[in-house]
Amino acid sequence: MKAAKPRIGLTLGDPAGVGPEIVAAACTRPEVHWCCRPVAVGHPDVLRRAARLWGAAAEIVLVGSPDEVEPSPWVIPCIPCGPEGAADVRPGTVNALSGQAAYEAVVAAARLALAGRLDAITTAPLHKEALHLAGHPYPGHTELLAELCGVREFAMMLYLGPGEPLRSPAGLAVVHVTLHTALRNVFETLSEDAVLVKARLADRFMTRIKDGARPRIGVCAVNPHGGEGGLFGDEEQRILRPAIERGRAEGLCLEGPLPADTLMVRARDGQYDAVVAMYHDQGHIALKLLGMHRAVNVTLGLPIVRTSVAHGTALDIAWQARAEIGSMLEAIRVASRLAMAGGEKEKRC
Amino acid sequence: MKAAKPRIGLTLGDPAGVGPEIVAAACTRPEVHWCCRPVAVGHPDVLRRAARLWGAAAEIVLVGSPDEVEPSPWVIPCIPCGPEGAADVRPGTVNALSGQAAYEAVVAAARLALAGRLDAITTAPLHKEALHLAGHPYPGHTELLAELCGVREFAMMLYLGPGEPLRSPAGLAVVHVTLHTALRNVFETLSEDAVLVKARLADRFMTRIKDGARPRIGVCAVNPHGGEGGLFGDEEQRILRPAIERGRAEGLCLEGPLPADTLMVRARDGQYDAVVAMYHDQGHIALKLLGMHRAVNVTLGLPIVRTSVAHGTALDIAWQARAEIGSMLEAIRVASRLAMAGGEKEKRC
Repeated sequence: MKAAKPRIGLTLGDPAGVGPEIVAAACTRPEVHWCCRPVAVGHPDVLRRAARLWGAAAEIVLVGSPDEVEPSPWVIPCIPCGPEGAADVRPGTVNALSGQAAYEAVVAAARLALAGRLDAITTAPLHKEALHLAGHPYPGHTELLAELCGVREFAMMLYLGPGEPLRSPAGLAVVHVTLHTALRNVFETLSEDAVLVKARLADRFMTRIKDGARPRIGVCAVNPHGGEGGLFGDEEQRILRPAIERGRAEGLCLEGPLPADTLMVRARDGQYDAVVAMYHDQGHIALKLLGMHRAVNVTLGLPIVRTSVAHGTALDIAWQARAEIGSMLEAIRVASRLAMAGGEKEKRC
Repeated sequence: MKAAKPRIGLTLGDPAGVGPEIVAAACTRPEVHWCCRPVAVGHPDVLRRAARLWGAAAEIVLVGSPDEVEPSPWVIPCIPCGPEGAADVRPGTVNALSGQAAYEAVVAAARLALAGRLDAITTAPLHKEALHLAGHPYPGHTELLAELCGVREFAMMLYLGPGEPLRSPAGLAVVHVTLHTALRNVFETLSEDAVLVKARLADRFMTRIKDGARPRIGVCAVNPHGGEGGLFGDEEQRILRPAIERGRAEGLCLEGPLPADTLMVRARDGQYDAVVAMYHDQGHIALKLLGMHRAVNVTLGLPIVRTSVAHGTALDIAWQARAEIGSMLEAIRVASRLAMAGGEKEKRC
């Protein structure tokens, strides 16, 4: 068991967005240093400008490896990377230079984590269009990280830590079987395997959060009232029931398919540790109402621990010292928790 | 302008369910008598049994017309109807006799309202299967009432009155463009006209609630992120935008299409008086999280005022004096509000 605090790499994200300032602000917060040793990854000039913007008295110290300098609210170690001029991009704009800077920070952080020199990475938001302008046609962080890590079974998951109005003591994980796709195309993608893959990833994640205890996972129905016995659609009988039975046979503690509206209320009230949602809005409507400002994005299925804020670059308020840092603080807290969690135990529900 | 309190007919619903007891309990509550004159509609033996179950000291007085007796917490006027033996059905069962009793109460109440002898009706839940067993193949109350009233443009709407966590001072109305249908069939039903019909009904309802002020209505996108400019589906551009433009040309205060997850948060925070949801779960996930126990069902488009509880017959807890009466109290309160509301003014937003 590791006694030392985990080393978390914080990528600066798109330098035209709120990323650099939320990283700089988080690095000066004592509670961050209670749970981990943060290291910024990105262009040091961008970080310096962001620290000045927030009136942070911290010194930026360039390091080649996360272990060189002990971070504190007054010392932010920075692994330098990113193109020349990254600090000169106009705040709030979408441009190739910003996209390149965001890209290089993710690559550098992922490599350090894969090499075991970081225990986790927490990423600030990048801008998809800027990433594309820089010649990196990934839909987002998740796919880029999956490629860097060489994995094919992965999932983006949203996690809300414990706290009102959530009554679940371990928080609530929401994993989506389909996500950024037209609603009418959900039915092409939905399959027993797709549901099972996500249920397994949610199980593995929440088992770590719960220190080896098996999480209870609710599986959303696709159709209203859970299809009402086949009256309003057959996906529940044809796909979800068989998937749930297979998952149970593997030892997962799955319940459902349950009507999504009642499942979300029961999840809020602490009856489930995780929910498998079938499509974007099914999960997001609940998550946003339950407190999106606290939500954390976790990539499941990677060989490294990676969390991120659940918001975007917020170009409209970037570099005005108005950004909300709650999601970044939560993302760092969850990354630390996951980096410290022991191996997975075999438990049946 | 009417100075008298409105006369509200309360149907007992399915006698095997929680309907009779929530009606009996509501009739003994002083706050109900502050806002209206309630009259029960159904089998008097069922009502008597329900009043006894709740330990109500009220006398059941049979009347032929709502005006014959002044109701009070100690006097429940009852317009008798329903088949012989309705009081002998086994609680918690689904049977034809119960279905017939529920049916006859709705018919009697609707006729009195159409004749102007009731100012509104509030219905307790019926059981669809029992209704079918009794030879009345309606999907539910709404369609039965539409037929009794001879209307074709109608909608079931859910309404949450003002109160935490809702910050809208006029409450929040949610109307669904499609409802009890398989999710994959939503796309067949979705049309400019279908969206407009619901937006108009929501506008008319909330204009009454807001005493003539024009309500702000948010229209949900179908696809995640509102389709992200056509990347995740084209219903927003093809159907929703044209529908919203037509509605605005008519003077409706419509906004959208907006991503449903952020729209629901903004509606909770008081930015909208009504939301047009495209399918069941989109509206219901939010409503249930915002307080389904207070939600009221309103049928829009009828020539009479009709509200109902938003829950079902709850056969598992029926006749155990455990039923939650909050939704019935709210349904009566909203019916009274609507019955007292003046005509609709023409206002632009």
